Amino acid sequence: MNVERPPPRGVALAGFGVYLPERRVPSEELDSLFGTPPGWVERATGVRERRWVRDETTEQMAACAARRALVAADVDPDDVGLVIAASASPRQLIPCTAVFVQRELGLREGGSACFDVDATCLSWLVALDLAALLVDAGRHRAILVVTCETASCSLNPREPESAGLFGDAAVATVVTRSRGAASAIGCPSFETHSSGANLAEFVGAGTRHHPNDSATRAEMNMFHMQGKALVKMARRIVPPFLDRYFTATGSSRCDYGVVVPHQASRLGVGALTERFGFTPAQVVSNLATRGNCIAASIPLAFAEAVEAGRIARGDRVLLLGSGAGVTLGAMDLVY
Amino acid sequence: MNVERPPPRGVALAGFGVYLPERRVPSEELDSLFGTPPGWVERATGVRERRWVRDETTEQMAACAARRALVAADVDPDDVGLVIAASASPRQLIPCTAVFVQRELGLREGGSACFDVDATCLSWLVALDLAALLVDAGRHRAILVVTCETASCSLNPREPESAGLFGDAAVATVVTRSRGAASAIGCPSFETHSSGANLAEFVGAGTRHHPNDSATRAEMNMFHMQGKALVKMARRIVPPFLDRYFTATGSSRCDYGVVVPHQASRLGVGALTERFGFTPAQVVSNLATRGNCIAASIPLAFAEAVEAGRIARGDRVLLLGSGAGVTLGAMDLVY
Repeated sequence: MNVERPPPRGVALAGFGVYLPERRVPSEELDSLFGTPPGWVERATGVRERRWVRDETTEQMAACAARRALVAADVDPDDVGLVIAASASPRQLIPCTAVFVQRELGLREGGSACFDVDATCLSWLVALDLAALLVDAGRHRAILVVTCETASCSLNPREPESAGLFGDAAVATVVTRSRGAASAIGCPSFETHSSGANLAEFVGAGTRHHPNDSATRAEMNMFHMQGKALVKMARRIVPPFLDRYFTATGSSRCDYGVVVPHQASRLGVGALTERFGFTPAQVVSNLATRGNCIAASIPLAFAEAVEAGRIARGDRVLLLGSGAGVTLGAMDLVY
Repeated sequence: MNVERPPPRGVALAGFGVYLPERRVPSEELDSLFGTPPGWVERATGVRERRWVRDETTEQMAACAARRALVAADVDPDDVGLVIAASASPRQLIPCTAVFVQRELGLREGGSACFDVDATCLSWLVALDLAALLVDAGRHRAILVVTCETASCSLNPREPESAGLFGDAAVATVVTRSRGAASAIGCPSFETHSSGANLAEFVGAGTRHHPNDSATRAEMNMFHMQGKALVKMARRIVPPFLDRYFTATGSSRCDYGVVVPHQASRLGVGALTERFGFTPAQVVSNLATRGNCIAASIPLAFAEAVEAGRIARGDRVLLLGSGAGVTLGAMDLVY
């Protein structure tokens, strides 16, 4: 556990932009697809509908979200000094996805640097932390963090409990210096428990099971999750993580009007109020309508809570999540 | 161009660790493999031999390099607060490679966070910059940056000029606060010119050409490079990049005893002395014996120069590179 004790940095989430694929996929459609009884997918996952891409590409979705975020943040594209793509579903292996976002957006050649960050479901949270550090260090006036997840092409219909859980989405955020006095990003904490590395995996698309290796089977290029084991592990490791976090930051659960968690699963989000000490009034969830959108989940739930008026400028927000690894993450910010 | 003007951070590259696969692949062997005339591969690439994995896995190579780096840096594994895996050849899509390095090393559960950074050939340089920022911000006592590249499984024998160029290697580095007064890491600069995004590509293993998409062909899961176009682009964009870098940092070519460039290609390394104003005495190259090891190239050349006594503690070193994107990067450090 490494928590930054200095005062939060005077850095702001200046704006969000969201792109949701047009295609709505109701859970009944998945019951037909998976061969599960009517109502099974919604009951098992807590997801009523999710969006899946039809023909949208990663860079189109990402660039659309980015344009909206730049407008929302009132930031000139020429002021973007860095594009970080933060997701677990890249466009391709080489070059990194951020390069294609720069190109699709038509950002000035050489005007920004591009790299990708991957911590699976926590990719956006890690990228936000790095962006805040870089802006605080005076390196860039504005950083674009783009998270575009297309989960739908990697789901295994033979594992309906996880295949029914995921949705596609792109969310972009612009990080700048705080303009008002209030906004701040601080107190991030991440820790990885790699004994759980095999509990949520996509074992293909790398050196271990290369796409051209004749021994690579189709299921290796699909997402596989041991949901029950993950929940069991989370129940064990999250409470001491939270205790350490609140001790180190000198805060407590009631300091946060809003908690935006990763929309890991029905049990995962439910545990926050049933086991981990938060109240239902604090916890934001869009799982029923969006599903688990991997790294796009936290920023999507955040953006929708802002849109709905549930989070306003100056509000103190706790971002919380877990991701494949198993990695836990928490971040305290003033929106 | 965004150059950090404040004084370099009091952060050190505390130690390197290298793992090279045992299998040596002389260029004559590749002439037989590719069907090129004897001597062709070495003449075309400037690479006499390179290492290719036989059965070493990504996490084995990475962990071996990491153990050596921790010993070299005299850092207790329990002090590692963050593992960053920085490469363009991940172990698998989910979870990120750093998780498997934590597990293979036997680092304490929850004692460190794990994420991956990808900027293709510049992944290590970007990760080093981020690690320096994080150590400087007081977030971690020690950060392990691990770069493990297995290029050999993704080469296209029908493109012998690029297939003959690449080698496999793992390099780990430990970043800590400076112990002596001298060591510092500072003045990084990166810029991406995405009009060159298609000049070096591996178009598979993502959403664009998913491994399970029946339209995905084997060549899409191989590396493809337009070498001549890349060289042409580099000749155009590197000189103004260097001019801006030296102007912004107030330094000049002769301030650096040693320049460690990415071992992009014979022409790429050669251009530094033939076109870009450096002297042969400054430029480190291990291309002839290692090939282009993607993101492991810069740290491998650096580690070998330290081993050979060419770089000593207190020396000022310029790290320079280009990567798929096209991204250019430069960093000034005192070893």
